[in-house]
Amino acid sequence: MKKTTELVAFQGEKGAFSQEAARRLLGERVEVVPCQRFEEVFLRLKEKAVDAAVVPIENTLAGSVHENYDHLLQFDFQIVAEANVRINHHLIAPPGVSFREIRRVYSHPVALNQCLEFFARHHQLEKVPFYDTAGAVKMIMEERPADAAAIASAVACEIYGGRILRRSLEDDRRNFTRFFLLRRSREARRFPAPAARDKGWKTSLVFSTRNVPGALFRALSAFALRDLNLTKIESRPLRGKPWEYLFYLDFLGRVEEPGVKNALGHLGELADFLRVLGCYPRGD
Amino acid sequence: MKKTTELVAFQGEKGAFSQEAARRLLGERVEVVPCQRFEEVFLRLKEKAVDAAVVPIENTLAGSVHENYDHLLQFDFQIVAEANVRINHHLIAPPGVSFREIRRVYSHPVALNQCLEFFARHHQLEKVPFYDTAGAVKMIMEERPADAAAIASAVACEIYGGRILRRSLEDDRRNFTRFFLLRRSREARRFPAPAARDKGWKTSLVFSTRNVPGALFRALSAFALRDLNLTKIESRPLRGKPWEYLFYLDFLGRVEEPGVKNALGHLGELADFLRVLGCYPRGD
Repeated sequence: MKKTTELVAFQGEKGAFSQEAARRLLGERVEVVPCQRFEEVFLRLKEKAVDAAVVPIENTLAGSVHENYDHLLQFDFQIVAEANVRINHHLIAPPGVSFREIRRVYSHPVALNQCLEFFARHHQLEKVPFYDTAGAVKMIMEERPADAAAIASAVACEIYGGRILRRSLEDDRRNFTRFFLLRRSREARRFPAPAARDKGWKTSLVFSTRNVPGALFRALSAFALRDLNLTKIESRPLRGKPWEYLFYLDFLGRVEEPGVKNALGHLGELADFLRVLGCYPRGD
Repeated sequence: MKKTTELVAFQGEKGAFSQEAARRLLGERVEVVPCQRFEEVFLRLKEKAVDAAVVPIENTLAGSVHENYDHLLQFDFQIVAEANVRINHHLIAPPGVSFREIRRVYSHPVALNQCLEFFARHHQLEKVPFYDTAGAVKMIMEERPADAAAIASAVACEIYGGRILRRSLEDDRRNFTRFFLLRRSREARRFPAPAARDKGWKTSLVFSTRNVPGALFRALSAFALRDLNLTKIESRPLRGKPWEYLFYLDFLGRVEEPGVKNALGHLGELADFLRVLGCYPRGD
């Protein structure tokens, strides 16, 4: 029997951008399990309280979410899909409240700081830091202060029954977050990959080399000699081993292809440590 | 005549971790110009309102501060020194207030989230999000709520006259932020580099290549063939040019050395764009 909805864990209140990503990755009917911390998200998936997890891995303005890379190393999950979600910050108030009445605006400081041009144009508005963007919408909808609004996503607005007073307040429109959909490794193959196969496949892996000159150069030869195109590379100090590094690398290709198999074999020879984190259809 | 104090801009309230970095980089007597935004820090330096700027560039838990890399590209400054500052979160209250009286703890949400084990042990404490860690100390010292404390740095505690009630609340002790000291390029050479030359030199640069397979591999050959050791590499999508990338790279070596000069010349041949962001003594 086909399951109709899946249970998916993510970090944040209902209506967080992770929930938007979960909808994109698993459809509108997905059932969500909000968690306080990223580690909790991974633990829920491990203990089978949920079928899948959605976690942010990098943001175009803020960079990589290293904590989640660390968890990917620690837990035995596979990346089965990716989604790039545009981060739009909207001004949200309870229905009936007009823009002219607003004096205080609640949101996470990171979101408030991404909307400084809006606040510079509207001096009457006071920025009030709040724990979470979606949580700020929840609070103003429950407590209904007469002069307050929140800055959050359209999904948060919809979930808590708010109304968008001003759209896309963010200073920089090139604000995207890349999310991974994760499943337990033993079960990952049971689920067919999502559509969008025409864009090709991407493989994510992590490896380490000894810290000798040219080590990374030799490791990359595994890809260059087979014309495989890298889409991301990042180095990170290896915990507890000063001056040794982990490299996170994404490239275009599918682990079933012979060239990719050979590249992974070659890299395995050169690296002290190598793990494929997942192979998935390339996102939009 | 030798100037006795220098004016340095940084982002955050007085007492922010950037101020701790500024002291480490320029000495205790440095005069600081706190700014609201990173861009403001760079503008102050450009318009000669300050002698130098101190900006965070990466954190071991949170990753690179991409905004500051972008500003480094946009402005004509040189990195003249680096410092790695351990991020310690302390519980700070006005003198006379005891730990048993505390019920509310103000700080930036990122700092509060880095102290979750402390809050799990002390259920009586409510986390209250605030705009800035040092700003939270300033507020409790001015308003003196009877039951409130702040989480911030030792420098913030000292500046605002608070008292540390509990030390190092952070869950993860491997929390370091790397800061750059910047000067206007035309003036950078006038200032002798700080001490600690025994650890050698580091050079930071940014380059781009066309997005063809093997482009990064060929670029890295400039370093590998000369036994130069990389300490950081990170790719970032080039704004406005989809599928093209900027690479930020740090390596051990000094631009005056012949091998480094040759490597930079070689990389210049292979890269579409190359800029040396600075050459400075390696930090601790």
